[in-house]
Amino acid sequence: MNFKSKLRSIIGEGLGLCIGLDPVLDRLPKKVRNSREPLYAFNREIIEHTYDIAAAYKLNLAFYEALGCDGWRQLEMTISDISDECLVIADGKRGDIGSTAKAYAASLFDTLKVDAATVNPYLGSDALEPFLDRTDHGAFILAVTSNPGSRDLQELVCDGEQLFHYVVRMACRLNKSGNVGLVVGATKPELWRDVMDIAVDLPLLVPGIGAQGGDLAALKSALQDYSAPVLVNASRSIIYASSGDDFGRAAREAAQSLNDQLS
Amino acid sequence: MNFKSKLRSIIGEGLGLCIGLDPVLDRLPKKVRNSREPLYAFNREIIEHTYDIAAAYKLNLAFYEALGCDGWRQLEMTISDISDECLVIADGKRGDIGSTAKAYAASLFDTLKVDAATVNPYLGSDALEPFLDRTDHGAFILAVTSNPGSRDLQELVCDGEQLFHYVVRMACRLNKSGNVGLVVGATKPELWRDVMDIAVDLPLLVPGIGAQGGDLAALKSALQDYSAPVLVNASRSIIYASSGDDFGRAAREAAQSLNDQLS
Repeated sequence: MNFKSKLRSIIGEGLGLCIGLDPVLDRLPKKVRNSREPLYAFNREIIEHTYDIAAAYKLNLAFYEALGCDGWRQLEMTISDISDECLVIADGKRGDIGSTAKAYAASLFDTLKVDAATVNPYLGSDALEPFLDRTDHGAFILAVTSNPGSRDLQELVCDGEQLFHYVVRMACRLNKSGNVGLVVGATKPELWRDVMDIAVDLPLLVPGIGAQGGDLAALKSALQDYSAPVLVNASRSIIYASSGDDFGRAAREAAQSLNDQLS
Repeated sequence: MNFKSKLRSIIGEGLGLCIGLDPVLDRLPKKVRNSREPLYAFNREIIEHTYDIAAAYKLNLAFYEALGCDGWRQLEMTISDISDECLVIADGKRGDIGSTAKAYAASLFDTLKVDAATVNPYLGSDALEPFLDRTDHGAFILAVTSNPGSRDLQELVCDGEQLFHYVVRMACRLNKSGNVGLVVGATKPELWRDVMDIAVDLPLLVPGIGAQGGDLAALKSALQDYSAPVLVNASRSIIYASSGDDFGRAAREAAQSLNDQLS
């Protein structure tokens, strides 16, 4: 079963909920902040309360690397706690020349043992191939990101087409093993039609719902004819649904509510 | 003293030598391969033999992350061993939305305590600013990379100008504190004139000499009128100059020989 089929089998019909585990030490509830492994303790409780709702968890590596080696240890502990019934996505937006990209792929797919990773297209196709050669794993290529500055380069017009069109075409060209996906920000509904027309059947990972203000109704309407699996990610709106010691239960309620809207 | 002045004071006249500490476990000499911290043991010997020649060390994070948490530990150990007389550059090509970029900047500048980092421009200016706000530290923005696939996006023509022109202009615009630099691959001599004409006085970090085949003579000739500090990086041609237990001494000879050509 290739990555896309695996994604479909986990998500089922409709859009899949992806929960972003992006813990910031200062924002963690008292109950876990003083534990020996605060990020892990926080994540474990979020996972315990949401694993039957989430299709995937996305771990943004920056929030672990902020604590250095100790953060990486808690990242590894978190990943080994996530059930096989959920996908694990390492969100590191890596991108480097071939020999280095191979080391990143080993780091993510062999050492961390995640199912998929986000990758940055600026270095071109040979920087993406070492990830895609790992055909059991997925790679979500950044196409349109959810931040305001995404327009600086991604929306530039090159020979009549915007830059992100080239990225989506490159992604399609590289998709020889059914393991390529795209990152497309929920905050950019005006670009969705273009992406879908070119991507046709690439899986999508959609950040920007929740704290970043993406419009879920507009997203659902845009996606109604799109046949490939789509994961919609929310991080802060779920994991920080309560700042108190009931954060696990509050995360479950927020996750359930968003998941109901997705299906 | 801003980052650019610090760079100039370390490099002095001419081009500065940057040594890439990119150790791959399988390629390490027997003497260190079986030690408890093989990457660190290897790096320590390279540093001991080259610290008086190198202006900077560049550590590509991928090669440490390939070993997970244990690799990060050896990365931290290596960095704390490097003398204050050399700059330390974390080469992770990071790039993410603002709140995440801030966590990456904390990871690199506070936890790892490096002097500078490489960053990826695809997400636009607000993804770069959290690095640049750390005005004591440098950020080298990827403009033209040294790999064959760099042409896929970087050389696309947008409104009459190639994409990397926009990146260089964005870098100039963001350089309010003298801490912005550019990564420009030595393998792309035909693009050097364009970069220098737009960048004017941004420091450069030049990978691609050595194992990647960049032409040093062409590089020196192109750079003769360029007044800003330039670091020329070589990794594999120095650290793997010998595959035997004399690798430290061989690295010193390779570093000395390249440095003589640079000055």
